[in-house]
Amino acid sequence: MKLGRIVGTVVSTRKDEKIEGLKLYLVRDLGLDMTEKDTFVVAADALGAGLHEVILYAQGSSARQTRVTDARPIDAVVMAIVDELEVGGKALYTKNPTQGEG
Amino acid sequence: MKLGRIVGTVVSTRKDEKIEGLKLYLVRDLGLDMTEKDTFVVAADALGAGLHEVILYAQGSSARQTRVTDARPIDAVVMAIVDELEVGGKALYTKNPTQGEG
Amino acid sequence: MKLGRIVGTVVSTRKDEKIEGLKLYLVRDLGLDMTEKDTFVVAADALGAGLHEVILYAQGSSARQTRVTDARPIDAVVMAIVDELEVGGKALYTKNPTQGEG
Amino acid sequence: MKLGRIVGTVVSTRKDEKIEGLKLYLVRDLGLDMTEKDTFVVAADALGAGLHEVILYAQGSSARQTRVTDARPIDAVVMAIVDELEVGGKALYTKNPTQGEG
Amino acid sequence: MKLGRIVGTVVSTRKDEKIEGLKLYLVRDLGLDMTEKDTFVVAADALGAGLHEVILYAQGSSARQTRVTDARPIDAVVMAIVDELEVGGKALYTKNPTQGEG
Repeated sequence: MKLGRIVGTVVSTRKDEKIEGLKLYLVRDLGLDMTEKDTFVVAADALGAGLHEVILYAQGSSARQTRVTDARPIDAVVMAIVDELEVGGKALYTKNPTQGEG
Repeated sequence: MKLGRIVGTVVSTRKDEKIEGLKLYLVRDLGLDMTEKDTFVVAADALGAGLHEVILYAQGSSARQTRVTDARPIDAVVMAIVDELEVGGKALYTKNPTQGEG
Repeated sequence: MKLGRIVGTVVSTRKDEKIEGLKLYLVRDLGLDMTEKDTFVVAADALGAGLHEVILYAQGSSARQTRVTDARPIDAVVMAIVDELEVGGKALYTKNPTQGEG
Repeated sequence: MKLGRIVGTVVSTRKDEKIEGLKLYLVRDLGLDMTEKDTFVVAADALGAGLHEVILYAQGSSARQTRVTDARPIDAVVMAIVDELEVGGKALYTKNPTQGEG
Repeated sequence: MKLGRIVGTVVSTRKDEKIEGLKLYLVRDLGLDMTEKDTFVVAADALGAGLHEVILYAQGSSARQTRVTDARPIDAVVMAIVDELEVGGKALYTKNPTQGEG
């Protein structure tokens, strides 16, 4: 999985019928220092995650293993919201309990 | 999924029998500032998308999950036309209603 | 799919039994200006393509969706010979009818 | 597979139901000189590996081939703890028998 | 497939039960000029290939299509030993018949 932050949304009316009803997020990749990188993906939301949240996304055929993405043309899915990252015994990131706006 | 713009078409007479009838587009990757990057893919069109449109494409086995690409040797498919990208509460991109030429 | 040019061949006597009989080509990636890049793959030939031809290759599990690569340990396959690339209303590349040597 | 070192852990309460119970590690990629690179992944642990251990991880659909990751939205899995790397007849790396803290 | 040279071996006692008995090689990627690049993978050996040999490896789900890797958490497999690479009508590489040490 990759570590990312949800930074935006994608609106699409004309799309493959199999992706109807899926929420699509712009997700920027994060470095180990939690800075946003230039790379990003568009990922389906399997969780009800919110803008600005730090999340994990899975790619490839594994992105189709959630209930909402099964058998759909989706190659990236938000499958976990990160509460805490711990590196070297220290919290690299801790989620603000009030963070996230669905 | 990746964000791209359809910039051209590929014509091929000699090709695997399983891709007969598919429209193949040249798609340039877009950055978060909507500029075209040097990287590109050739993607099958599952939608009737048009030249110059901003689209999403799915890759890998997920590219075979649309009705038109099922069981074909296709590793990239245009599966959504983007109407709007919203980042930080602002529209990063809004589709011109008259845009796109099939 | 990726755009490439067939630049060479690979000869192998000791190989997995499932790839017996497949022709393996060295394929260099091409940029949008049709120059050869430093990156390349070895791809199986599903078409009877020839040296120097500009082709498309599919990767990953999609590379196993042609009749000749089905269920084989092949992750890249030449599945279309390019006749023409059109970008911005102009032919970026047109195949010379006499090009290609099987 | 890729060579990496387990450098941290990811805590997540809200996640896809199918990944409940999996331990998720931050894994930094290692170069052939055993230095940590800037790239990293989050990988599920199929082994009971510990912090600081040098491991191999598998990606893509292959990451779902262990007993603990089967049919889950997991695209990277720790599937081997490295005891020794030998390059050019010399041990590039030898695991300290007391290394690793579950 | 990618072109590489087997440069080392990986020893692992604690590993997923499904990879028991597989030989794991360190494989460095080769450029078109046959120089070793900085990138490498760990690949299972499906052939009885030997150290220093120039080989092809397949990645992703295709790496599970050999008899020895079927249904295992393996994402790279050595599936051909290269005898000769021919580019531009010249042999870029020819295998020394005495090369390779199992």
